[in-house]
Amino acid sequence: MVFCIAVCGSRDVPPHESDTVLLQAELIGKYVAENQCVLVTGGRGGVMEAACKGAKQNGGMTIGILPGSRSEDANPYVDIALPTMMGERRNALLVSIADCIIAVCGRWGTLNEITYAVIQRKPIVFLKGSGGFVDKLLAGDFQKAIPGAYTVSTNPKDAVEQAINLASDVNVSKH
Amino acid sequence: MVFCIAVCGSRDVPPHESDTVLLQAELIGKYVAENQCVLVTGGRGGVMEAACKGAKQNGGMTIGILPGSRSEDANPYVDIALPTMMGERRNALLVSIADCIIAVCGRWGTLNEITYAVIQRKPIVFLKGSGGFVDKLLAGDFQKAIPGAYTVSTNPKDAVEQAINLASDVNVSKH
Amino acid sequence: MVFCIAVCGSRDVPPHESDTVLLQAELIGKYVAENQCVLVTGGRGGVMEAACKGAKQNGGMTIGILPGSRSEDANPYVDIALPTMMGERRNALLVSIADCIIAVCGRWGTLNEITYAVIQRKPIVFLKGSGGFVDKLLAGDFQKAIPGAYTVSTNPKDAVEQAINLASDVNVSKH
Amino acid sequence: MVFCIAVCGSRDVPPHESDTVLLQAELIGKYVAENQCVLVTGGRGGVMEAACKGAKQNGGMTIGILPGSRSEDANPYVDIALPTMMGERRNALLVSIADCIIAVCGRWGTLNEITYAVIQRKPIVFLKGSGGFVDKLLAGDFQKAIPGAYTVSTNPKDAVEQAINLASDVNVSKH
Repeated sequence: MVFCIAVCGSRDVPPHESDTVLLQAELIGKYVAENQCVLVTGGRGGVMEAACKGAKQNGGMTIGILPGSRSEDANPYVDIALPTMMGERRNALLVSIADCIIAVCGRWGTLNEITYAVIQRKPIVFLKGSGGFVDKLLAGDFQKAIPGAYTVSTNPKDAVEQAINLASDVNVSKH
Repeated sequence: MVFCIAVCGSRDVPPHESDTVLLQAELIGKYVAENQCVLVTGGRGGVMEAACKGAKQNGGMTIGILPGSRSEDANPYVDIALPTMMGERRNALLVSIADCIIAVCGRWGTLNEITYAVIQRKPIVFLKGSGGFVDKLLAGDFQKAIPGAYTVSTNPKDAVEQAINLASDVNVSKH
Repeated sequence: MVFCIAVCGSRDVPPHESDTVLLQAELIGKYVAENQCVLVTGGRGGVMEAACKGAKQNGGMTIGILPGSRSEDANPYVDIALPTMMGERRNALLVSIADCIIAVCGRWGTLNEITYAVIQRKPIVFLKGSGGFVDKLLAGDFQKAIPGAYTVSTNPKDAVEQAINLASDVNVSKH
Repeated sequence: MVFCIAVCGSRDVPPHESDTVLLQAELIGKYVAENQCVLVTGGRGGVMEAACKGAKQNGGMTIGILPGSRSEDANPYVDIALPTMMGERRNALLVSIADCIIAVCGRWGTLNEITYAVIQRKPIVFLKGSGGFVDKLLAGDFQKAIPGAYTVSTNPKDAVEQAINLASDVNVSKH
C-alpha cells in the first residue's frame, strides 16, 4: 500500500487570494509526489488542478474523484479518474480513499470534506494563512472540537510532512 | 406533494444543554405536525428522537433516514425508516428529501448537513440560542457566505413558520 | 412502523406488453393502498406511475425515490419525493426502504433492483406472466439461486398478499 | 489517462469451479498488467484476489474498491484501497472507474455489476465457460438485450485484448 494524500480546496478561488493559494496547492502536489505518495483531489479546476499539476510535474501519480459522469471532465493532470456521478457527495469518497487530508482555503465544499474527515476520523492538516473557510474555522477555534488527529501548518512543505506523519501514526495504530 | 421539514441535530447533546435543546426539538416536531408537514430526521436518538416524539404526539408523520442497515435502530417515534447503509453520508439524503432544514445545536454531523443544504441550495433555519455549532457558526458569521436562502430564528414556533415560508418560496420559484 | 411495498418495473414498457403490465401495476398499487401499506417506487413513469396512480386513487400513500435532483420530476401520484441525485444507484435505496419488492416485467434497471434485494435479503415477489426480464429470469431458474425469501405469483391481488406475508415473516424473525 | 480494466467475480467460488476460475482470473490480471492497464476489483478474496495477484506479480498496479470502512480488509495484492463504506453498492463505483469490465463466473454481486455496466453504458466482456451466472446469462441470451458494447470471449488473453479494444472504441467516440 502507498499513502494517498488528499488536497481539499475550491474550484473557484477568489481573485485576490488565487495567486498565493494556487501556488501553495501546486507546492503541496510537488511535495506529495516527491514523497512517493499518491495525490487525491476532486479532479476539477482551481486548487485541485494546481495540486495535480504540481504532482505530475514532479513524477507523481494523481487520482481524481469526480462529481459527474464523464472522465473527460477531469483536469489534464489527473491520471486515474473516478466519475462517481454522486455530485458533491463524492467528497465523502475522496476522504475515504485518503490517508490524510490537507485543507487549503476553501468554502462550503471544503468544509463538507473537513466534516467528513472528522466523522471518519481521518487526520487533517489545516494550511493556516491560506484564507477562506480554513482560516475562518481556525479563528473560531472549531478545530478544538475535533476528536481525532489534526495539525495546523503554515507552509506547503511542512503541511505534507505533517500529513505523512499523521497518516503513518494512524497506520501504525491499526496494527 | 407535502412539505418535508428536516430537523438536524445531534444524537448526543451535552448534559448542560440537553434539557433546553430537547424541549426545543420536541416543540419543533409538534409544530411541524400541526402544520401538516412531514418531519424528517436521521432517525436516531437525542435531538432526532425528541423532534419525532413531538410530531407523533401531535398526529404527525415521521421519516427516519438511518445510517445503518437495520430499521429496528430507528427511535420509537419513526413511522417510515430508510436504512440507508451509508453511515453519515445519509446526511446528504436527509437534506435531499427535505424542503427546508432546521438546525438545532449540533456538532460535526449537523455541520455536515448544513454544508449539504448550502451546496444543494436547500433553505436553512438556524435556531439561534440552541448552542453547539449552530451558535458557533452564527458567531463567526459563516451564514453570510450562504448563497441561497436562510434565516435565523430564536424559538421553535417561529422556526417552523420560517421553514414553511422558505419551503413555499422555493416551491413557487420552481413553477 | 408501517410496511413499505416497492413495485419494481420499467419506465418504458414495450408497446405490445404495456396494456397488461400497466394494468397489473395499477392493481398492485390499489391493493397495497387497501392493505394500509405505503407504496414505494422509483417515482418516474411507466410501471412506477401506474402503481402510484392505483395507490393514490384508493387512498394510499406513495414515496418516490427519484434518480435526479428535482422533485418536480416525480410522476403526479407521488406524495413524498426523495430526489437522490444518485442516478440508477437510487435503486439500492428503493430496496432499502422496502419491506418487500414486487418485480413486474422490467429490464436492466429492474434486474439491478432484484440483485440488490437478493444481496440485502429483502423478500421478492416475481409477477409471473408480466413479461420482460421477470419471465426471463424465471425461465432460466435464476430464482433457485436466491438465498433468501421469494415467491412467484400470477396476479396482482395475490402478489400483494404474498408481499405482506413475506414482509411480516421477516419482521417477526427480527424480534 | 490510463485504462482501468475491472474484473468482476465472486469472493466465494464453488469448490468444483474454483481451480479453473481462479487461474483464469489470475491470467486476466497478468495480461492487464502486461498491457500497462490498471486493474480494478472489489478488493476482496476469490476471483478478486486472484486477479490482483496476477497483476502484481507482473508489475501491474491494482485498485481495490472495498465495501467496508477498513483499508486493511483489502487482499494483499491491492495497491490503493478505497474503503467506500457503501457495502455492495460500491459495485456501482467499481463500474464507474472502469473503462471496461470483464465478468468471470460470479453470482448475484457479479450480476449486479453487470447491470450497472449496462446502465452506465460501460463495455462488458463475458468470459464464456467460466461458469456461474456468466454462463447462465449467456445461455438465456440476456446479452442480446444489452444496448451498448459487449463481447463474449473464451480465454483470458483474448478477453483482455477485447476489453482494451472496447475501452479504446469508447474513448475514441468521446473525442
